[in-house]
Amino acid sequence: MIPRYSRPEMVAIWSPETRFRIWFEIEAYACDALAEIGVIPKEAAKTIWEKGGAAKFDVARIDEIEAVTKHDVIAFLTHLGEFIGPEARFVHQGMTSSDVLDTTLNIQLVRAADLLLADLDRVLAALKKRAFEHKDTIRIGRSHGIHAEPTTMGLTFARFYAEMERNRARLIAARAEIATGAISGAVGTFANIDPSVEEYVCEKLGLVPEPVSTQVIPRDRHAMFFATLGVIASSIENVAIEIRHMQRTEVLEAEEFFSPGQKGSSAMPHKRNPVLTENLTGLARLVRMSVTPALENVALWHERDISHSSVERAIGPDTTITLDFALNRLAGVIEKLVIYPENMLKNLNKFRGLVHSQRVLLALTQAGVSREDSYRLVQRNAMKVWEQGADFLEELLGDKEVTAALSEQEIREKFDLGYHTKHVDTIFKRVFGES
Amino acid sequence: MIPRYSRPEMVAIWSPETRFRIWFEIEAYACDALAEIGVIPKEAAKTIWEKGGAAKFDVARIDEIEAVTKHDVIAFLTHLGEFIGPEARFVHQGMTSSDVLDTTLNIQLVRAADLLLADLDRVLAALKKRAFEHKDTIRIGRSHGIHAEPTTMGLTFARFYAEMERNRARLIAARAEIATGAISGAVGTFANIDPSVEEYVCEKLGLVPEPVSTQVIPRDRHAMFFATLGVIASSIENVAIEIRHMQRTEVLEAEEFFSPGQKGSSAMPHKRNPVLTENLTGLARLVRMSVTPALENVALWHERDISHSSVERAIGPDTTITLDFALNRLAGVIEKLVIYPENMLKNLNKFRGLVHSQRVLLALTQAGVSREDSYRLVQRNAMKVWEQGADFLEELLGDKEVTAALSEQEIREKFDLGYHTKHVDTIFKRVFGES
Amino acid sequence: MIPRYSRPEMVAIWSPETRFRIWFEIEAYACDALAEIGVIPKEAAKTIWEKGGAAKFDVARIDEIEAVTKHDVIAFLTHLGEFIGPEARFVHQGMTSSDVLDTTLNIQLVRAADLLLADLDRVLAALKKRAFEHKDTIRIGRSHGIHAEPTTMGLTFARFYAEMERNRARLIAARAEIATGAISGAVGTFANIDPSVEEYVCEKLGLVPEPVSTQVIPRDRHAMFFATLGVIASSIENVAIEIRHMQRTEVLEAEEFFSPGQKGSSAMPHKRNPVLTENLTGLARLVRMSVTPALENVALWHERDISHSSVERAIGPDTTITLDFALNRLAGVIEKLVIYPENMLKNLNKFRGLVHSQRVLLALTQAGVSREDSYRLVQRNAMKVWEQGADFLEELLGDKEVTAALSEQEIREKFDLGYHTKHVDTIFKRVFGES
Amino acid sequence: MIPRYSRPEMVAIWSPETRFRIWFEIEAYACDALAEIGVIPKEAAKTIWEKGGAAKFDVARIDEIEAVTKHDVIAFLTHLGEFIGPEARFVHQGMTSSDVLDTTLNIQLVRAADLLLADLDRVLAALKKRAFEHKDTIRIGRSHGIHAEPTTMGLTFARFYAEMERNRARLIAARAEIATGAISGAVGTFANIDPSVEEYVCEKLGLVPEPVSTQVIPRDRHAMFFATLGVIASSIENVAIEIRHMQRTEVLEAEEFFSPGQKGSSAMPHKRNPVLTENLTGLARLVRMSVTPALENVALWHERDISHSSVERAIGPDTTITLDFALNRLAGVIEKLVIYPENMLKNLNKFRGLVHSQRVLLALTQAGVSREDSYRLVQRNAMKVWEQGADFLEELLGDKEVTAALSEQEIREKFDLGYHTKHVDTIFKRVFGES
Repeated sequence: MIPRYSRPEMVAIWSPETRFRIWFEIEAYACDALAEIGVIPKEAAKTIWEKGGAAKFDVARIDEIEAVTKHDVIAFLTHLGEFIGPEARFVHQGMTSSDVLDTTLNIQLVRAADLLLADLDRVLAALKKRAFEHKDTIRIGRSHGIHAEPTTMGLTFARFYAEMERNRARLIAARAEIATGAISGAVGTFANIDPSVEEYVCEKLGLVPEPVSTQVIPRDRHAMFFATLGVIASSIENVAIEIRHMQRTEVLEAEEFFSPGQKGSSAMPHKRNPVLTENLTGLARLVRMSVTPALENVALWHERDISHSSVERAIGPDTTITLDFALNRLAGVIEKLVIYPENMLKNLNKFRGLVHSQRVLLALTQAGVSREDSYRLVQRNAMKVWEQGADFLEELLGDKEVTAALSEQEIREKFDLGYHTKHVDTIFKRVFGES
Repeated sequence: MIPRYSRPEMVAIWSPETRFRIWFEIEAYACDALAEIGVIPKEAAKTIWEKGGAAKFDVARIDEIEAVTKHDVIAFLTHLGEFIGPEARFVHQGMTSSDVLDTTLNIQLVRAADLLLADLDRVLAALKKRAFEHKDTIRIGRSHGIHAEPTTMGLTFARFYAEMERNRARLIAARAEIATGAISGAVGTFANIDPSVEEYVCEKLGLVPEPVSTQVIPRDRHAMFFATLGVIASSIENVAIEIRHMQRTEVLEAEEFFSPGQKGSSAMPHKRNPVLTENLTGLARLVRMSVTPALENVALWHERDISHSSVERAIGPDTTITLDFALNRLAGVIEKLVIYPENMLKNLNKFRGLVHSQRVLLALTQAGVSREDSYRLVQRNAMKVWEQGADFLEELLGDKEVTAALSEQEIREKFDLGYHTKHVDTIFKRVFGES
Repeated sequence: MIPRYSRPEMVAIWSPETRFRIWFEIEAYACDALAEIGVIPKEAAKTIWEKGGAAKFDVARIDEIEAVTKHDVIAFLTHLGEFIGPEARFVHQGMTSSDVLDTTLNIQLVRAADLLLADLDRVLAALKKRAFEHKDTIRIGRSHGIHAEPTTMGLTFARFYAEMERNRARLIAARAEIATGAISGAVGTFANIDPSVEEYVCEKLGLVPEPVSTQVIPRDRHAMFFATLGVIASSIENVAIEIRHMQRTEVLEAEEFFSPGQKGSSAMPHKRNPVLTENLTGLARLVRMSVTPALENVALWHERDISHSSVERAIGPDTTITLDFALNRLAGVIEKLVIYPENMLKNLNKFRGLVHSQRVLLALTQAGVSREDSYRLVQRNAMKVWEQGADFLEELLGDKEVTAALSEQEIREKFDLGYHTKHVDTIFKRVFGES
Repeated sequence: MIPRYSRPEMVAIWSPETRFRIWFEIEAYACDALAEIGVIPKEAAKTIWEKGGAAKFDVARIDEIEAVTKHDVIAFLTHLGEFIGPEARFVHQGMTSSDVLDTTLNIQLVRAADLLLADLDRVLAALKKRAFEHKDTIRIGRSHGIHAEPTTMGLTFARFYAEMERNRARLIAARAEIATGAISGAVGTFANIDPSVEEYVCEKLGLVPEPVSTQVIPRDRHAMFFATLGVIASSIENVAIEIRHMQRTEVLEAEEFFSPGQKGSSAMPHKRNPVLTENLTGLARLVRMSVTPALENVALWHERDISHSSVERAIGPDTTITLDFALNRLAGVIEKLVIYPENMLKNLNKFRGLVHSQRVLLALTQAGVSREDSYRLVQRNAMKVWEQGADFLEELLGDKEVTAALSEQEIREKFDLGYHTKHVDTIFKRVFGES
């Protein structure tokens, strides 16, 4: 976790305090369930909730105990006992450390997913707003970085919206993947604890019981979770690179917001760097790098080996914190993105009407000119534009072979940008359900 | 694609013949739709289906044309024209190469997904059969590679089943991700083709129209698809490593099937190597390696750059072919896996009853012996087993301090393996819906 | 391997014919060594060389035998015996299949490395030539995609040259990593074959004996090899992205060569796409994807498991073939890159002298104007350029506060581009040893 | 960085205090060089060293300033000015932030490499000691996890030694890769600072001047650095997995050291888990995950974009800290590894002499028995061992067909383990230069 790329809400999920509070709740709910089936006294469960619920766990004290016992769950239980008193002996009956640890990890990941979903909602809202705002803002579409045909800025936002909405659906699926809990004992057989305890604890904590676990919850779930975060990060990179391109000096169709007081280069007003989206590009790499170790974590030996644990201690917090930060940074960038429609038009007209050459070509063919002749006609006029900076429309209107086939009005019609935007509404309806 | 790791069904999906056939169908359906809205004559569309449908495309001829035109779709259309005749001029009206190429890729991936789903079904059937067959076959559960508590071979198969069933659900979701088509023109605005054409073609080909495309279908879809294949591959590795461990000389709880005629080392009957599951471990790495480039493919420049294309030419076929082969190999391994229940029991009893020490410890505590004393009693008897090879049950029965707390029957009960398997039915019901 | 991204020289290294020829040479040299120490008759070794050397191995025949024996080396030896006759029984004495297979793989990788080194030399020659050609071709340097200070096109080529020269050194080191051979038997103890055989065979084949092997050559060597190829691929991407940026419509400082006959968009002369460098971007991803599986291949079980083998069957050929193709494509792109110095100047002057604002600022400060005042002065003139399209030099010359501090000549000096290129010679000397 | 996987020496390299101290030294050395060529007064340089050298930088204060200026280097320089006074204006003359930042990163990586080299030395010393200690400790070699032929524990250590020595050489090369500095200005042209400053500062700080930089030092260097760490991590995994296998309950040829006081499972003495090597397996994944983003960092836009920065803020510290911790943990594991030679022998003899069957087979053939008959003879005796638990030597001695071909002494000789270890000295000499 790098403080400058962290938001407190997500950091809090991964704090020791949160972790110990979840541990306590798992243990206390398990006591309720154990009391229900008569394994421990109901009074004990009540006391555990009361005293433990009121306790303020002392992380330093737990660390101190762990330094001796070299076992984190035992250290916690010892500390918990300091609050609860004699009834502490009823805590953790028949349970295994992994029952607590694995269920806790999944609760943390679920909470992280909930934050990320809220982040995505913010991104979606921003994209939608900007999409409608610039629904009809014409800009040149580019393939291979080369001008192709006109499109609109609204369509650019709309496609990012659609992509992020897919990511939202993916994240909901990924959340379901890791919303399971397991209290099934040393090798998952429930030898020492009744399955009803698992069911009760899971229900109380918003989880589904893992149908079959070993000592641990199977790691294909976590692999899928982190793979999904990797896809979302790649989409962030996708948006970021679009903005970085738009902010290029030679393009300048948009700029990241630059607050009036912000220290840029006052002497070089053009020196406004897209540092936020460049940063997002790097953060995307950081999020993605967790995918491979998460995949490598799946194949554990027999009923578990502990190789996955150190990996998750790192990527659990780091990846969710980074992605949470990145999504919020992205939302901010989109919300405040300064867009320059005039520059878009200027860029579009860079080749004085040449962007319409394909339509003219088609029109000539449809007017009965042979394909070869049509090409020749368009090409000789296009070349004048390209080489001498002439205006394409004027050249065409002055070319008798062209005007022999097409009337002036027909030629002029081919230069109508509306031709390219006539289906924007259709696309908006597909994406937003409205236009 | 490596021939020895390929199955013909999957290879066929990626053959030039299949590709050209799909191209033709896209073009021909588009002609139907164009005829429907009056852009081309209905008769032309009919002729295109008739003559093109009967055509046998000549891959070498198309390559020959492409060598000149340096454009694959144009080469194909030229060749198609050789069959269709003058009506060929109505083909591809207002369309862009990417409309054909991207829609085709997705059709191929959908077909690949369908094969992979059938593969998973075979794996699932095998796992279920073996799970029920060995539902009660006792073996030792292991954490960290060290004996822990008893479990059953059926539970091992059941957890692999549950994992593969999750993979099945993931693959269905991944299939939906890439089951889209786009016929939206050079930058996705439908400037030169009506959206109804896209809708018609997609419906005919089992796809959903991409809500908003650029020149290409957005690559977050493909990233999610390949990420899902990477998770499935990791699950294959998970099963493979379990079997490799079971086949180790010192463990020998199972062996890959070895046909009587198969040339092993006849002089060294123990030398039967788990080469299939070792191979699966490697194939899993190959499938997984496509995930990162697929993620890197998401962030294309503006309305498209073509960097993704070479990546997909490789990982499209290679990854699906390898995974298809691996799933079938895995199914075969599971179906024929030779299981040695006696060896399982022998391994479980390696420490002459020591596996039950935890239960004895608990029983002593519950019988009122202090925790410290219970430990001491269990430990001193356990050490005799560990160091002198004594039998744990006999030692306990001969220890007066132990028998003072527990009756012989109570002690013997703690050695009942049924204690560990009493919830197998519950777990089977969760996993299979039956037990 | 994708044919369109393959060159025959590299493909040949990985053909079955080449492989079998290497197998034969290893076996035949081993016979020489075995004969030398009296294990087999010298006459036999001679016969083996004569008859085997003249043999034309029939790949289909070997496949046929392997279909029965399920063992590739045995199949080959059987086929070899068909040429050699009775002396065939002296071949492979005391050797293990892996002795042949692993040594062969390394020979193939060494040969691949030699081709790649030649490829790098071609890239280096092209970069050097273009660097000197454009040593003084001024262009704007950009940080964050935003104009910064002037540099030269020669410096751009020079830094790519320096980077590729580092890659050359890395590849030489990587070649040494895998230039080892092992003929050490089933677990690497030389139990059945004298170490002198290994030494002799390695020397003859240009390899170093692996100091300590198991059944296989340790895979950290191959991991390092493929990691190095991954770095080289990333450098290719680095050059490719620079060119893609330069070819952008709005930048147009360079273009990939477009042959006169090449079918671009004749009607849209600006529509020349940087498809080669986009392709290189994708190929870089393909090369890089082999790094992780190569790293995962290192940790084999005990004296060997065979999980690495399937991985290497894929990445051995695919990665070297792709990188070989990519380096050659890159060399071609650089050699023929069309550079537009006038556009570079036009871009540099986009903000009418604003690029020199930093120098003016510094000059004002050095002339005794306070830092705050200097900023204010520069800024107010810069803003006129930025907002009204004025010329920076003229504005400064007309600003009395500025001219109070700096003479006209002093101001004009600040607009000297030579200021930025005065150390180009120094840098060239560092990079090329000459300038 | 995860505290429990961190050592203070490596953490200190990445502390803000260290970073600011290096920043100061770069600035101060640059002042010396600037004074030398007359750009600033020599007295000023002296004052800067004196006052800055004595300063204790206040990280919180710098953060405070950065919160306003949003620029880390400016914040530091402001704070530095608070110590130095008016001469502070001579600091950073003509320099760019990246000059300081990039050179600092490389200094930190060099220091990290030095620690890692020391770590490797500790690992190497441990491996060498254990190798000689167990040079002749016989154990069974295994391919595919299946018993193959005898080897020695010393050879296992020797091969890990050779692998780690290769890693040492690789790390020295990687250290050289990033031991460069750059003080070359905004786009690397030295427009505002003389190259002699770079040369002087680099020399003083143990770096080599980057031959040609842009605003930044080229990232192929860092990619190679992290790729090398990834290879080293894979070697750690290689050793870790060997130990995990050896500690398996059924194998038990070695165990991680378990201190007498350590709380294991006292009631289950076999329950000693190889948690350190399992942890190393996970840590290897964490180190390796930095390789891909480091490769992705190479292709920056033009003279620099800042996408690499966030990646390096994470992987710079995290990867070196984790690897440092892992190497030390590995050294500790090796130093104290408890080895059980008796269990090795017991495992080797698991099949009562069957391990020698290959030699018997060869001997029969050499004694003139046909290949088919030899197989038959060995096989029928081997099967009695395999199926009935007979002793192979006794069976052979009792088989008249066998004794007709081989004398008792000849047969007994084939059961000599020394046959397999006769070249251990040779291998040790290759690896250690001594035996």
